[in-house]
Amino acid sequence: MNGENNVSIIEVAALADVSTATVSRVLSGKRTKNDDISRRVRKAAQSLNYEANYAASALRSDVTKSYGLLIETVQDTFTAQMVDALEQAANTADRQLILAIGMNRETREERLATLYSRRIDGLIAVARGKGARTGGDESTNGPDDQGIQGHRIADFAASHPDFSVVQISGNAPTLYANWVGMDDSGTIQLAIDHLTARNATSIAFLGDFPNNMLTANMFATFQSTSEITSMYTEPEWSTFGPHTVERGYRDTLGIFSPQSGSGRRPQGLICTSLHVAIGARMALGQLGLSVPEDVKIICITDNRPFTNEELEFTTVSPAYEYMAEETIRLLESRKKSPHWLPAHTMFPPHIVQRASTHAPRFGASDMEQPASRDQ
Amino acid sequence: MNGENNVSIIEVAALADVSTATVSRVLSGKRTKNDDISRRVRKAAQSLNYEANYAASALRSDVTKSYGLLIETVQDTFTAQMVDALEQAANTADRQLILAIGMNRETREERLATLYSRRIDGLIAVARGKGARTGGDESTNGPDDQGIQGHRIADFAASHPDFSVVQISGNAPTLYANWVGMDDSGTIQLAIDHLTARNATSIAFLGDFPNNMLTANMFATFQSTSEITSMYTEPEWSTFGPHTVERGYRDTLGIFSPQSGSGRRPQGLICTSLHVAIGARMALGQLGLSVPEDVKIICITDNRPFTNEELEFTTVSPAYEYMAEETIRLLESRKKSPHWLPAHTMFPPHIVQRASTHAPRFGASDMEQPASRDQ
Repeated sequence: MNGENNVSIIEVAALADVSTATVSRVLSGKRTKNDDISRRVRKAAQSLNYEANYAASALRSDVTKSYGLLIETVQDTFTAQMVDALEQAANTADRQLILAIGMNRETREERLATLYSRRIDGLIAVARGKGARTGGDESTNGPDDQGIQGHRIADFAASHPDFSVVQISGNAPTLYANWVGMDDSGTIQLAIDHLTARNATSIAFLGDFPNNMLTANMFATFQSTSEITSMYTEPEWSTFGPHTVERGYRDTLGIFSPQSGSGRRPQGLICTSLHVAIGARMALGQLGLSVPEDVKIICITDNRPFTNEELEFTTVSPAYEYMAEETIRLLESRKKSPHWLPAHTMFPPHIVQRASTHAPRFGASDMEQPASRDQ
Repeated sequence: MNGENNVSIIEVAALADVSTATVSRVLSGKRTKNDDISRRVRKAAQSLNYEANYAASALRSDVTKSYGLLIETVQDTFTAQMVDALEQAANTADRQLILAIGMNRETREERLATLYSRRIDGLIAVARGKGARTGGDESTNGPDDQGIQGHRIADFAASHPDFSVVQISGNAPTLYANWVGMDDSGTIQLAIDHLTARNATSIAFLGDFPNNMLTANMFATFQSTSEITSMYTEPEWSTFGPHTVERGYRDTLGIFSPQSGSGRRPQGLICTSLHVAIGARMALGQLGLSVPEDVKIICITDNRPFTNEELEFTTVSPAYEYMAEETIRLLESRKKSPHWLPAHTMFPPHIVQRASTHAPRFGASDMEQPASRDQ
C-alpha cells in the first residue's frame, strides 16, 4: 500500500458504515477492541490505501515530541523509581521518552551523540542513587568513572545551546543545565521528627560507610538534631558499615547487649539501608524485643519495593512524582531568551509510614502526616 | 533560524575551514569535544542557517527506526536486566526504543494505543519475572490484572497485522506474536549438576510457595533429578514459603537441627530467592558451618545485582543478552509474506558462579564451566 491517492477519512467512514470519529479512534489505536467495527474500519482503510496516509500525516505533524532519557542502568533502585515516574509525567504531557543506557563513560558519550543526531527535543539525564540512598544495590562504577554527573552533562548542554537539558540527582550542576534533586539535609530531621512523634526518647543510627559527603552530612544532622530535640543517644549507638543483613544483625546485638553503658537502650533505630534494617529486626527478635512495640525502625533509603519481608519498613523516600513533573515542565519551557538561567530545584523527601513505626502518636490532630502520593 | 535557503554542507565546511566530514561529525553530535573546531563549525552552520536544514533532513530520512518497549515497571529485577540488555541490542542495530510503562491494565491499553499512533516500527512487550525467578520483589498485580501476558499482546498483534510484535517471558503466546523466553525446566538440572560437580552428595530445596506452575515444575524436576543422579535428600529438606530472610533462617535451622532423622545433613542448598539464601547463610553461621566449605548455596533467581552481601551467591540467570539480540533480530525480519509464522524461542539459563559454591571440582578439565557473558 502506498498513500499517493488522496483518500479522506470521510470515504473510509462511508465504506465502513461508521462515523469519522470511530475511524480515527480505530486507526490511531485508541479503540483497542478487536470487534466487527474495528475490522470493518481497517478493511475499508486498507482497500482505500488510507492507513498509509494516516501514518504519513502523523509523521509530518509536530505533535510527537521526544525527550532523550539517559541513565546508567535501570538496575539501580533510585533510577528505576525515577524512570517509572518520568514515563508517567512524559505521557501526561503527551511526550515520548527515547531510552539511552550508558553503563560506562564511553557508552554514555556514544549514546549522547546518537540521541543528539536523532529527533529529540531535550535531554533528561538521571544520576544513580548514591551512598545511603541506594539501599541494597551500589554496584560501584570504575575508579575513573564518576557516572552521570553535572560536569559532563553541563559540557553537553553548553555545547548544544539549542537543547534543553535537565539533570536529575548527582553532583552539583553548572549554569548550563537545569537540575532537579533531593533535599538531603531534611531527611534525617524528618526521620527524627517521625520517631519523636511516636514517643521514642532515645535513638541509634546505623549508617553507611562514612566515606562520602552524604553520609557525613547525615551523621552531622543526626547529632545536631538529636541534641536540639533532647533525643537521647550514646556514641556506641552510631555505627558505620556495609549495607548487609549480617551487619545490621551484629551491630544491633552490640547496641542492645545488656552490659553496655548506661543501662538505657534505643527506642528508635534509623537505618540507612533496607538490608541493615532487616538484620536489625532479626537481632531484636532474638533478644525478645518487638518491632514496633519496643523499638521503632525507620529506613533512609529509596529501596521501596525491592522486598517483601514479613514486616514492612517505614521509609523516607524521594518525591519521585514531583521531581518527574518538574523535569518535564522545565523541558517544556525551553530556554529561548539570551537571559535564560537554569533552574536548580531541590525537593524535600517524604515519609511513607509502614508497620515498623506504627504506634499511637503523641500530640494533637495537627501532627497528622500529610497524605502521601505513594501507594 | 529557519532552513528555507539551500545551504550545502560544503559552504559550512569552507566557512569553518574544516572538512565536510568534520562538519557532519560535529553537527550530528558524533564529535563530542567542545574545542575551537567544534565552535567554528557550529558558528558557521548557525550563520548560514545550516543546522536547521540538517535536522530537517534527518527528520525526513527513514534511518531512525523506533521500537515501542512496553513494560509494567522497571522496579522488577527481571524487567530491569532485560531492559538494560534490550537497549544495548537496539543500539547495536541502530534502533531506538520508545519507553512505555503501564503499571495496570488500563494504563497499558492506553500506552499501546499511544505507541501505535506514533511512528514506531514494532513492539516489544516484557512480562514481569514471575514466582521464584523474581528474587526479592514480587509486588503482585491486582486480582484481575494478569500483567503483560500472551493473551492481550496477541490480541494487539492480531489486530495490527502491519506490526511486528515480540513478547518476552510471561505466559504462552499465540500464533500472532513472536515470543522469547527462558527454558525453566533446565534451571534446576543445571543447579544440581553444578553442586554435583563440586562434590555435594546431599541437597535441600528451599522453594517458593507452591501455588504456581513454575514452582510445581521446579520441585518435580528437583525430585526426579536428585533421584536420577543419586543425590541424597529427605522430605523435610524441601520447604516452601515466602521470599524472606527470616524464613530462610528458620527453615535452615530446622533442616540442620541435630535431632532430625538420619543424622545426615545437606551439603548443598538450592534457594529460589536471594533473601532466603541470605537467611540460610546466617543460620549456618550460627550453627558453626561455613559457606562454601561445609555447605554450598546456589540461588535460582534473576536478582543478580540488587545486593552487596559479604558473601556473593552463585546464581542461575536468564541469558538476557541472547534474548535481547533475538528480540531485535525478530523485529528486523518483519512479517511480510502471507505464510508468516511467529517464532517461539526458549533460551536456557546459565550459571554465574560466585563465592557461595566456590570449591575444588570433581573431575577433569572438560567439566570447565563455559565462560559467562555476564560481568
